[in-house]
Amino acid sequence: MLMLWFVGTGINGYRGLSLAAVDILKKCDVIYVERFTSLLSDGDISGLNSATGRQAIPVQRWFVEDGREILEASKEKQIALVTYGDPLIATTHSELRARAAKNSIKTAVLHGASGIASIMGECGLHIYKFGRTVTMMSEPKSAISVYNTVFDNLLAGAHTLVLTEYSHDDKGAFFLEPGQVFRMLLDVERDQRHHVFSEETFVVVASRVGDDDQRIVSGKIKSLAGVGFGPGPHSVIITGMLHFTEEEALEALTVSLDGPADNAKSIKRISAQMVERYAPKAKEAVKQMRNVLRDDDKGDKKGMYEVLDNAEYYISDSERFLMQGRHDLAVLSIGYAEGLIDALRFQKGINPWNP
Amino acid sequence: MLMLWFVGTGINGYRGLSLAAVDILKKCDVIYVERFTSLLSDGDISGLNSATGRQAIPVQRWFVEDGREILEASKEKQIALVTYGDPLIATTHSELRARAAKNSIKTAVLHGASGIASIMGECGLHIYKFGRTVTMMSEPKSAISVYNTVFDNLLAGAHTLVLTEYSHDDKGAFFLEPGQVFRMLLDVERDQRHHVFSEETFVVVASRVGDDDQRIVSGKIKSLAGVGFGPGPHSVIITGMLHFTEEEALEALTVSLDGPADNAKSIKRISAQMVERYAPKAKEAVKQMRNVLRDDDKGDKKGMYEVLDNAEYYISDSERFLMQGRHDLAVLSIGYAEGLIDALRFQKGINPWNP
Repeated sequence: MLMLWFVGTGINGYRGLSLAAVDILKKCDVIYVERFTSLLSDGDISGLNSATGRQAIPVQRWFVEDGREILEASKEKQIALVTYGDPLIATTHSELRARAAKNSIKTAVLHGASGIASIMGECGLHIYKFGRTVTMMSEPKSAISVYNTVFDNLLAGAHTLVLTEYSHDDKGAFFLEPGQVFRMLLDVERDQRHHVFSEETFVVVASRVGDDDQRIVSGKIKSLAGVGFGPGPHSVIITGMLHFTEEEALEALTVSLDGPADNAKSIKRISAQMVERYAPKAKEAVKQMRNVLRDDDKGDKKGMYEVLDNAEYYISDSERFLMQGRHDLAVLSIGYAEGLIDALRFQKGINPWNP
Repeated sequence: MLMLWFVGTGINGYRGLSLAAVDILKKCDVIYVERFTSLLSDGDISGLNSATGRQAIPVQRWFVEDGREILEASKEKQIALVTYGDPLIATTHSELRARAAKNSIKTAVLHGASGIASIMGECGLHIYKFGRTVTMMSEPKSAISVYNTVFDNLLAGAHTLVLTEYSHDDKGAFFLEPGQVFRMLLDVERDQRHHVFSEETFVVVASRVGDDDQRIVSGKIKSLAGVGFGPGPHSVIITGMLHFTEEEALEALTVSLDGPADNAKSIKRISAQMVERYAPKAKEAVKQMRNVLRDDDKGDKKGMYEVLDNAEYYISDSERFLMQGRHDLAVLSIGYAEGLIDALRFQKGINPWNP
């Protein structure tokens, strides 16, 4: 049966090809090897050729994105597209597979070790504890989206894998330095001020995972500032809540410059920041307002005392909701208490907030 | 050099072993094959034995968890522990690797295709768009944590991969039916009422990914109710925001009972639910209050009008903050507006909320 095969080499060069993949490749009429997203060397392609007895054809990204030649060929021959890692991680390949299916071309996938899952495991972290993965590019806007993803993940206690820009063409490889990644994220911190990143943030840098000179270093950003990480690709992991087995693994399996730390501990929801800042101020304002009322004999004081009593109830409700993790109710309640207090302010023309 | 090797078979039986893995296994003195988390059949073990010229020893979970025999053996011999999928996905293996490192035993990992990454790709979805992965067990409490993870992921627009309980021992295999998963999640919905799940929720069920009889079905929960999914393992994906290439892939690559749908669209933050419910009521209350004041000539009306003007400003602020995605400020503002209005209520002894 004619088939378009998507074959992943895993992350150890051509020798990551599975027995099943080699058997299939031997039977294929044409083998394309995708070299844009891939880290496959010329040596890997020769190795693949001798393992399969075939002459694989290296192709560029545009060739796969365009895809027409591959799809046309698949209507008449056994075709394989070989890619680094797992073949369905890159969107381009997944798209091509859907286009093939729409054209009634049968497809099958021989999965390989994915770089993403391998990096998570190599650092000793549990894959289940990762939130959304994000890619950091060299343009400054990218750092904002990375910052927000890390913030969201930390609020859920989750780790974040940050892949970093990496590409290579005829002129050589470009990769984003981990030091540059940290500087960009600290810049965003200065704008956003959600206390996501500081020099104390514990991070893991995984470089060249799968290569012989793979290296994984962990520590605070300030400790990693002076480290030379060598050529890419690099990934950065910002750890969330750590299971003790993860802490032990980080210490045992990485070059550990500082003991592992839970970055989720110091993170606070904006709602919690609000309530913790506003509740004490509101309590003080109620006190001030009571003093003003005591010395004043105009107006309907009974109604005003009722307002202040209610403000106090809602301030403590807010603090209680916060403890229960009911963040929206906590914010609603503190806002309500402030509104009650300020209504009296507008009417009495005094400001209890800055006594 | 003595080494403890962690070797993954990937997801296609023993033939998912890489060329590199087979070379290493040939040189090992002892090969343990972990069969608890694994789906490796007796046939796979014979296949592994003929590919490597060795006699692999099948071991149970307790043997790996205990780990002492493996660690002791690794001090004197070349040892390999072969596992299904990627070897570092299971916490047990990652833990054993850290213990080995602490005992100065060198370890190395030959990664294999991971079930998790493969499932995401097989469904035509982008791995970068998945939030935290979660496992659903048969005990009802587990459903609450799955529900909350799906809710959090959908709020971020992200997909959720729900792995389901699967185990096998001498008595056979136990797996959670997808239908049971849906019933449990709909039960939680009835309690929590965050509109995360309904009969209309679009889900993907991936069964036996990697096996020859792999099947992936997508559609609304109500359409999937009558489907027989066959034996496990099953995974369920709840889709978030879909890229159009993901929609096309879902339609082309899965048994598609209903067109793909973005479940994130119908999901609302509690904060948004609050503002959308409270803002119109607050506007109405201001109007009522103005009517009461107009017909009333007691008290300091100027201050009270100022209070109502401010309430109106804050109601529109709240709606604007919501549109800008500044959810906490939106809730704070609507709470504040309600407080302003209610201060007058307490003083005037009237209730503008239920005219």
